[in-house]
Amino acid sequence: MRVWFTTLAAVAMLASPAFADPLRTSAEAVRDRALADPTAYDYVEQLSVEVGPRLAGSEAAARARDWAVAKLKALGFANVHVEPFPITAWLRGPEEAEITAPRPQRLAIIGLGGSVPTPPEGVEGEIALFHTYADLLAAPPGSLAGKIAVVTQPMPRAQDGSGYGALNPARRAGPSEAARRGAVAYLVRSLATGVSREPHTGALNYQESAPKIPAAALSVIDAQLIDHLAARGAPIRIRLKLASATQPATAWTVEGEFPGAAHPDQIVQLGGHLDSWDPGTGSIDDGAGMAIAVGAAHAAAAEGPPKRTIRVALFGAEEMDFARPAFAAAHKGDNIVVIGESDIGADRAWKVQLPAGAFQAPEMKTYAAVVAPLAVWVSPEPSRGSGDDTADLVRAGVPAFAVAQDASRYFDWHHSSEDTLDKIDRDQLNQAVATWAAFAYIAANSDIDFRALAPAAAKPGP
Amino acid sequence: MRVWFTTLAAVAMLASPAFADPLRTSAEAVRDRALADPTAYDYVEQLSVEVGPRLAGSEAAARARDWAVAKLKALGFANVHVEPFPITAWLRGPEEAEITAPRPQRLAIIGLGGSVPTPPEGVEGEIALFHTYADLLAAPPGSLAGKIAVVTQPMPRAQDGSGYGALNPARRAGPSEAARRGAVAYLVRSLATGVSREPHTGALNYQESAPKIPAAALSVIDAQLIDHLAARGAPIRIRLKLASATQPATAWTVEGEFPGAAHPDQIVQLGGHLDSWDPGTGSIDDGAGMAIAVGAAHAAAAEGPPKRTIRVALFGAEEMDFARPAFAAAHKGDNIVVIGESDIGADRAWKVQLPAGAFQAPEMKTYAAVVAPLAVWVSPEPSRGSGDDTADLVRAGVPAFAVAQDASRYFDWHHSSEDTLDKIDRDQLNQAVATWAAFAYIAANSDIDFRALAPAAAKPGP
Repeated sequence: MRVWFTTLAAVAMLASPAFADPLRTSAEAVRDRALADPTAYDYVEQLSVEVGPRLAGSEAAARARDWAVAKLKALGFANVHVEPFPITAWLRGPEEAEITAPRPQRLAIIGLGGSVPTPPEGVEGEIALFHTYADLLAAPPGSLAGKIAVVTQPMPRAQDGSGYGALNPARRAGPSEAARRGAVAYLVRSLATGVSREPHTGALNYQESAPKIPAAALSVIDAQLIDHLAARGAPIRIRLKLASATQPATAWTVEGEFPGAAHPDQIVQLGGHLDSWDPGTGSIDDGAGMAIAVGAAHAAAAEGPPKRTIRVALFGAEEMDFARPAFAAAHKGDNIVVIGESDIGADRAWKVQLPAGAFQAPEMKTYAAVVAPLAVWVSPEPSRGSGDDTADLVRAGVPAFAVAQDASRYFDWHHSSEDTLDKIDRDQLNQAVATWAAFAYIAANSDIDFRALAPAAAKPGP
Repeated sequence: MRVWFTTLAAVAMLASPAFADPLRTSAEAVRDRALADPTAYDYVEQLSVEVGPRLAGSEAAARARDWAVAKLKALGFANVHVEPFPITAWLRGPEEAEITAPRPQRLAIIGLGGSVPTPPEGVEGEIALFHTYADLLAAPPGSLAGKIAVVTQPMPRAQDGSGYGALNPARRAGPSEAARRGAVAYLVRSLATGVSREPHTGALNYQESAPKIPAAALSVIDAQLIDHLAARGAPIRIRLKLASATQPATAWTVEGEFPGAAHPDQIVQLGGHLDSWDPGTGSIDDGAGMAIAVGAAHAAAAEGPPKRTIRVALFGAEEMDFARPAFAAAHKGDNIVVIGESDIGADRAWKVQLPAGAFQAPEMKTYAAVVAPLAVWVSPEPSRGSGDDTADLVRAGVPAFAVAQDASRYFDWHHSSEDTLDKIDRDQLNQAVATWAAFAYIAANSDIDFRALAPAAAKPGP
C-alpha cells in the first residue's frame, strides 16, 4: 500500500503553541487519543467476525441489533435503546445467468435489491447493449420489446466518490427506464471501480409508471466480455434466473449517548448504519462508518463529560432507504446542534466541510488547526449533507458536518462479497476517527450555534 | 501500479449505436485515435531528454523555444510563431542549510522561486516552529524577531489537487507574513504529498509592506525531523545560505494552429506551459500538459480540417506568473470560443467541467457519451477556470473547459528533482489526450456558442 501518512507518531508528539486556547489543547488530546485507540478497529472486527452480513429484515439484523446494544453499553454509552420501525424486507434467493448465444458463458451476476423475481424457469432473450446509460435513455419507446437491456458504462474512480453519484441512476432508475421501452429484464455493469469477477449489488427504485422487470448487476469482467462479444456483430442472448421474496418486517435503529453535563438537551448527533448488503461482511459499508462514529464519541467523551450530549445512532435500514424517514420522524423535535453520518469506508480523511456560515467561526478555526497535522483541510465550501440517513433532517434545517474520506478504493469492494475486514487499515481508520472526534469534542464543549451562523439563504423556508 | 482502466482495447472497439449522430461518430474516431497515438508521449519524451529543465529566462528556455517551434511544425501545425514578452528572470545559485543545535544535521532544502539571497555567510538563528500556517498568522507582531520561522503543516493528498490550494498561501505569502513579525528567514515544509528527502520549490510572492527575507522549502523528511527534535524541548538553531540573482530577460509563448476551414477567426484555444522549475526535467509539470494539448489538437485535426481554428499555446513563463498577463494582452481581441490549459500532470482524466450553461447543450451531451467509456464523467458543476495562464482571459469572459486529471500522485514529484519522465504512464496519458481531443473536435466542428449559453450571472460586467 502507498504511504499515505506523515508519521502518526510525530503527529501525536506535536505540542500546541504557547498561545493556544484550552479548547484547542483538549481537542488535540482527543485527536491524539483517537489515533492510538483500538475502539474503532475492535468494533468493526467484532461485528465482521461475530455478526457478519445483516440485511435489514433478516435474522442477522436482529443479531446485529443485540450485538450493538451490548457493545454500546460495554463502551460506556448511556441511554442505550432501540427504535423499531416497520419495513418491507427484501430477501435474496438463488440467482444465475448465462450467455446462451453466440456461445455459452456463465455470468457472474447479483440481483439488485428490491428486484422482482423472474419466473422459475427464468427469462431469456436477445440483448440490447448500451455503452452509456444516456444511450438507453435515448432509445425510442418500444425499441427494447422482448429484449434484455444491458448497460456497460464504466464508473469513474474518484477520491470524493463522485463517480458513484454519476452512475447511480443507471442502477436505481435503469430497470424502469428499460421496462418503459419494452425490455423484459435489465442488467447493469456493477457500479464498481475495480476490475473483478465479483458483482456489486445495491438498491433499485421502481417507478410506478413502468412495469417491474427483474434486474441484476454484472461483474465488471463479464460486462467487458459482453462488450468484446458485441463487437463481433452476432446477436447475444442471455438467460437470467432471479429468486427473491418480500415480507413485512421490523428494523431497528440503535442509539446511545454520552449525556451533556451542562446542556443535555443540545445534541451533537453522529452515526453510521447497522444494516449491510448480504454478500460480504459489511465491514467497510458500514461497519467502518459505525466504528468511526462510535470511536469518535468514545474518544471525545474520554476527555471528560461533554457540556452537550454526544449521541450516536446506528441506523438500521440504510441500504433500502427505510431508516431516513423513520429517524426524521422520531427526532424532528430534538435540539440537534449538528449532525453527521460516517458512511464512506475506512480510509483516511482528507477534507472536511462545515455547516454553511461556520467556516469563519473561532471554534472552527481551532478545529482546522487541530486537524491540519493529520493532513486534513477544512474547505470553505459548506457541506450539503452528511449521509443518507440524516438527509431528511438536514433538509429540514439541521446543520450538517461532513468528512470526506478517501474513497479511491472504496468502490472496488462496496456492495460485493469483497466488503470484508481485510480492507481496513488501522492507521487510516484511526486518522478518520481522530478527524471526527476532534469535531465532536469541539461541537459538544463550546457554545457554537451553527443555526445562528447560517446565512439566510441556507435556512429552510417556513 | 493499480489497474485504473477497463481495457482500453475494449473501448476502442465500441461501436456507437445506430441512432448516433455523425458528430458523435467522428468524435469517437478522434477519441480512439488518441488512445493509440504516440504523439503525446513522444512530445514529452523528446522534451525531457533533449531539452530538460527550462526555467523562464534561462539559456535552456531559448533552447526549449526553438525545440517547440520545430516540433509544432513537424507535427503539421500552421502559423507557428513566437510571442516574446519581458520578464524579470530569477536564477538559482548554490544553496545549503543545516541544523547547528542541539546537534548538527544537514538539511535538504531548495530556495523558493523569487527568494532574495542570504548574505554570503548565510543567516543563522533559533527557529520558531509552527505546526500549522494558521499558527504563524496568529503570532503577534515582533514575536519572531531575529528568528527563522519554520512551518511544518503537511499537505493533504487529493485527487482533485485541492490540498495544494489549501497549503499554497504557506509558500506564497508565508515569507512576508513571517518577516512582518520579525523573522530573518523562512522555511516551509515542501508542498508535497509524498514522504521523501527531495525538497519541492515553487514561487513566493513578496508583499510590498514587509521586508524581503530569504525563503526555502524543507524536504518532508527534514520537516518531520524538526518536528521530532522540537518535541524534545531544546531550542533548535538553523543556518541557511541561499544565492540567487535576478535580471531583465525575455520569455516566449510559442503558438501554432490547425486553421479553421469554415470559421478561421473562431478559436478553440488549448495550451500547456513550456517553462519548468529547474531541479527535475519538467516532465509532469508541464511537459505532459503541453503533450496533452498538442496531442489532442493533432488527433482532432487528423479527422480532417476543423471548421473552427484549433490553436495551441505553449506558455513561456507560468511558474513565476509572467505568461498570464502577456497572453491576455496579446489575445484579448481574439474570438476565442473556449479556452483550456492542461497543467496537472500525466495521469488519467476522471471528471470534466464545462463552461457555465453548457451542460444541457446537445453537443455536450454528445461529448459526455463519447467520453463515458473512458470512465470520465461530465459534472453539472460549471468550470471556474482552466489553468493559470488563461485566468485573465477567463476573468474577462472567455468560456473555460477544464479536465480533472487524477492528481493523487502528482504532488509527490511536482517542483522537485523527481519530476522526470519515468512518472508518465502512456495509457493514462493517452486517456487524458482522448478526453481533450474529443472535446476539441466537437467544439471546433459544431456551432456551439458557449458565450450565448452562459447564464447572465456568469457573464462579466461592463
